[in-house]
Amino acid sequence: MAGLATPEQCWIPWMRRALQLAALAEGRTSPNPLVGAVVLDSDFRLVGEGFHARAGLPHAEPGALKQAGKAAEGGTIVVTLEPCCHQGRTPPCTEAILAAGIQRVVVALTDPDPRVAGGGLQRLRDAGLEVISGILASEAAYQNRAFVHRVRTGRPWGVLKWAMSLDGRTALPNGASQWISGPPARAWVHQLRSQCDAVIVGGGTVRADDPLLTSRGHRSPEPLRVVLSRSLDLPLSAQLWRQTTAPTLVAHAGSGNMETAPQANHVAALQAQGVELQKLDHCDPEHLLRELARRGCNRVLWECGPGLASAALQQDCVQEIAAVIAPKLLGGELARTPLGDLGFTAMDQVFSLNCEPGLSLGQDILMQAQVSAFAAPN
Amino acid sequence: MAGLATPEQCWIPWMRRALQLAALAEGRTSPNPLVGAVVLDSDFRLVGEGFHARAGLPHAEPGALKQAGKAAEGGTIVVTLEPCCHQGRTPPCTEAILAAGIQRVVVALTDPDPRVAGGGLQRLRDAGLEVISGILASEAAYQNRAFVHRVRTGRPWGVLKWAMSLDGRTALPNGASQWISGPPARAWVHQLRSQCDAVIVGGGTVRADDPLLTSRGHRSPEPLRVVLSRSLDLPLSAQLWRQTTAPTLVAHAGSGNMETAPQANHVAALQAQGVELQKLDHCDPEHLLRELARRGCNRVLWECGPGLASAALQQDCVQEIAAVIAPKLLGGELARTPLGDLGFTAMDQVFSLNCEPGLSLGQDILMQAQVSAFAAPN
Repeated sequence: MAGLATPEQCWIPWMRRALQLAALAEGRTSPNPLVGAVVLDSDFRLVGEGFHARAGLPHAEPGALKQAGKAAEGGTIVVTLEPCCHQGRTPPCTEAILAAGIQRVVVALTDPDPRVAGGGLQRLRDAGLEVISGILASEAAYQNRAFVHRVRTGRPWGVLKWAMSLDGRTALPNGASQWISGPPARAWVHQLRSQCDAVIVGGGTVRADDPLLTSRGHRSPEPLRVVLSRSLDLPLSAQLWRQTTAPTLVAHAGSGNMETAPQANHVAALQAQGVELQKLDHCDPEHLLRELARRGCNRVLWECGPGLASAALQQDCVQEIAAVIAPKLLGGELARTPLGDLGFTAMDQVFSLNCEPGLSLGQDILMQAQVSAFAAPN
Repeated sequence: MAGLATPEQCWIPWMRRALQLAALAEGRTSPNPLVGAVVLDSDFRLVGEGFHARAGLPHAEPGALKQAGKAAEGGTIVVTLEPCCHQGRTPPCTEAILAAGIQRVVVALTDPDPRVAGGGLQRLRDAGLEVISGILASEAAYQNRAFVHRVRTGRPWGVLKWAMSLDGRTALPNGASQWISGPPARAWVHQLRSQCDAVIVGGGTVRADDPLLTSRGHRSPEPLRVVLSRSLDLPLSAQLWRQTTAPTLVAHAGSGNMETAPQANHVAALQAQGVELQKLDHCDPEHLLRELARRGCNRVLWECGPGLASAALQQDCVQEIAAVIAPKLLGGELARTPLGDLGFTAMDQVFSLNCEPGLSLGQDILMQAQVSAFAAPN
């Protein structure tokens, strides 16, 4: 078959395998994308597999090519994302592919990174290789939706999570909220955190719940814990300040707010415990996410109260909802609900979601939804 | 095999068929239970089937026996509920069974009606028949949960239905609520109404939504439409007052409230349109349901606002929840939610539900839950 054109469908099973390999590093590659690759010899036999495990470690392609060795000559590489053509922390993958004697490159997705953006495929075509792209492009774009979103918008992909009763309450009128959901749902939230680079709350959640916000060891290092606090009116003692557990960043509105004595005391006390403070030009979700993108976050988790959650939604900082619904009725006209005001006056203005069917987590039901329709690139 | 003892399991498929027959009349037999029956000849061949179609029409047993004719002699009747032994609108079924020459009676559930309550089975045993009871008793009790509940408590089984956004709102802050759920979910609600004997709202829902509250022809006659109104502050013109569509009952607090001129006018205007008024000793969910039980309702549907829904829950007038969750975010601190105050101060006080997995209705998700654990009788 070598040398003959092959129908596009024949690449689908290999691309599916490459996507599986890429998924092995889910939540650990930021700011890089997830990438998986398989190498076939000239008789279409699998001779190499690889995936990108973590930023700073080799890309998927060199690993798969190394495993293939001389069998790669005249063969095919199937890779979930366009090979890079620039020198980063590792050398360009295009050159590794050419050096290995590969004759055909099959790609799912063009890399939206402006340093690549089709340049990798062009380099390979120019060198005389057959290049096929767009195989399982939607699946690959969905797998890398956080990376793609961050590259396109300069902000990480936002997931907003809450746990509520069937009547839509996230706490009793007196503020009690432990626990609305059961142990399996709470364990799932630890897993969700392990897929995220940062977990964000507001000052109110620190004051009310004193949360830990870790993945309970599912991720190493733990995600960055972030408090967005305009006032810096934060308790001096909180689980979040223990930096041996996980790093914590307090993002705030800047020195203008810190001139009163209590705030200066707070800052000193937090800094003494190793908490990092970050001044934002504007103390809002959008500016926080730009800062977190700058720090290499692809995906962040909002675990905040209704006011901050609404602001995050309104500033397009939430792309996905994860709502745990507990089989309970709490009631209470003044009980906390997932969101605050959104300013809608007609039903055609409201946020529309693409909801997946519910998933059972013990006695609770998990509803997952995308806020804006997901648009595949290319 | 005739004359030999048969293992209980052998009756299960026949009882399942009898339950299927009973279900054919779902929502149409009140105040009577659902009942299905099959007759087997002495060689265990199916020779007759019957079900109770509507109060006043024959019970399940005579229909099945009539179909069997002489083949019933020496045979078995498998019936979902204990045969009655009293003269009601139709003669006692025990006597029909004896007259047909049946030798064995297999029953799922003892009839909780105090006029029967084991007396039917005793009559058959005394006449020398083999009587086996308790086959698929849980399934039969679940099928007749509304009837059993009404007989035991003197109140119909209550279903509380609402449609909300994923953030737990049943309206926008300005009150707009049409439509939160989509056409398939609204069609499902029409089906749900067709399974109920009455649909209940408060005065606030009449004023805000001017609802129709019919099954859109799925049930004939339409369920009774009930307005529970302490104040009788009701609009003079409303879809509910058109009695050619369906009957309407306005339950109110009595003449003490009607001495002011506007209320007297309202009463006269409603009565002129054929609306029935019913004074309650106390204008609350419990007294309303006792009145509706007296009128023969086995199952009622609460489609009311948060205040009345909470009162109904607190007075143990809600046994089942049907919550439609739309993939939307409405927000709004003052937006309406499914329930009002329930007075809870700790998580171990809240209403606990047995929730079934979500069901897709178009883009919406239907969550169905039982409020109190369902206890099978016997």
